[in-house]
Amino acid sequence: MSGAYVHGYHARENERLQDQAGTLVDLLHADTTYLVGSKVLEAGCGVGAQTVTLARRSPGARFMSIDVSAESIAEAKQRIDTAGLTNVEFRQADIFDLPLNPESFDHVFVCFVLEHLSRPVEALAILNTMLRPGGTVTVIEGDHGSAFFHPDSPDAHAAIRCQVELQRQAGGNALIGRQLYPLMIESGFGAVRVSPRMVYVDASRPELVDGFTRKTFTAMIEGIRESALSARLISPESFDAGVQHLHRTTKADGVFCYTFFKGIGEKRRVA
Amino acid sequence: MSGAYVHGYHARENERLQDQAGTLVDLLHADTTYLVGSKVLEAGCGVGAQTVTLARRSPGARFMSIDVSAESIAEAKQRIDTAGLTNVEFRQADIFDLPLNPESFDHVFVCFVLEHLSRPVEALAILNTMLRPGGTVTVIEGDHGSAFFHPDSPDAHAAIRCQVELQRQAGGNALIGRQLYPLMIESGFGAVRVSPRMVYVDASRPELVDGFTRKTFTAMIEGIRESALSARLISPESFDAGVQHLHRTTKADGVFCYTFFKGIGEKRRVA
Repeated sequence: MSGAYVHGYHARENERLQDQAGTLVDLLHADTTYLVGSKVLEAGCGVGAQTVTLARRSPGARFMSIDVSAESIAEAKQRIDTAGLTNVEFRQADIFDLPLNPESFDHVFVCFVLEHLSRPVEALAILNTMLRPGGTVTVIEGDHGSAFFHPDSPDAHAAIRCQVELQRQAGGNALIGRQLYPLMIESGFGAVRVSPRMVYVDASRPELVDGFTRKTFTAMIEGIRESALSARLISPESFDAGVQHLHRTTKADGVFCYTFFKGIGEKRRVA
Repeated sequence: MSGAYVHGYHARENERLQDQAGTLVDLLHADTTYLVGSKVLEAGCGVGAQTVTLARRSPGARFMSIDVSAESIAEAKQRIDTAGLTNVEFRQADIFDLPLNPESFDHVFVCFVLEHLSRPVEALAILNTMLRPGGTVTVIEGDHGSAFFHPDSPDAHAAIRCQVELQRQAGGNALIGRQLYPLMIESGFGAVRVSPRMVYVDASRPELVDGFTRKTFTAMIEGIRESALSARLISPESFDAGVQHLHRTTKADGVFCYTFFKGIGEKRRVA
């Protein structure tokens, strides 16, 4: 896997990923259920934020969840054990060097992973080889360029652009959500269908104000302060004003919008 | 009504509004139906782009459609007659000086109107007085700051910002969609619920590529070229490159996203 994982691997980040999965679970995963007996490869499970949701929603499916980080795998395993789930097997593995048999899975699931890869099309093409003909891939990614809010703020947009730039410098792409359709087509998948999943947050949805705007998105931007300043991408004044303005959108008259994209494709059957 | 109508009143614009209503009708209107016998005020019907949809979807409701422009009213009336609809009455009237009885409507419908007003809260508050207690208002607005696309293009964003700036100079607000919730609350409505309606366009949706990206959004931006250049908001080179890049998003690997917002509120019952 190429590039450093820009979000880092520390405890607060793990909490953030949990908050994210907790408040977004219906929006992102409600339409993902796997049949009894089906074999599912979760590529890049990280600390298991999505794994628990997936395994719980499809108790009869058997999951193989892989990640390049042994530390993350250990945390994910503990989380699955704590949840009392027994249908997940974990393995430390690199998407670009998979120790698995081709065409041995009915489904592949990839969530918040492609954004960190410099060769997302190659990754998808490799995952495609793991699927039986007619098997499906499900890809979920965010897009930081999709964020807009009220009150609007040039500083907040500048702070968000720091995250995009840092991720780019690490070999990733924080604007990848909007590109899912062409990437999946280029990787060879058929019957590709992409749908946007907008998180719309106003004061009538307090659980999203806290769980998404504050603890997921704004916390993520706050978390890159030192990196952004060290890389001289922005002045401390502008960055801090930007973060303050993101918090401002959580007031009673504030609004925050962010869009995830979910793509589903099929491995083509050989004619 | 304050401010010039930035889109103008010529034939091509009317076509654009028709195209817009045609391809977006389900996304925006599928959940709007009025009961038999209910009285609905459509405020700012323009050339009737939405009126035909409304009247057809609720054949038992009686519509009073008003607009400040006599010319638009004439065109809207012709359109309704051509469609064979008989449940719409038209009247030339200004939202800020309504020749109608207070509390005489069950519902108010306002679509693509507030974006052109310098006092949207006052307009909504006046429309609120037209509703019987417990009656509902439905508001639909776009938000030009919600547009993002692949391939990304600073020139395209600059061209879009010209539209935002021209509308601002005319007293309007092209970023009003994201503000519906606070505006409706401030106007005194209760039970306000806003939902985003994203138009997501990739090559698998050719009717939206043509009907929305090309003939609605890009055509709108192309239409402000002379105004933007006269106001010295942008160089001709940058504007033309921006328009070209918007067209570029209609290719097989392009993606275009734009979000409308739909808000529903209730006139509070007096305690």
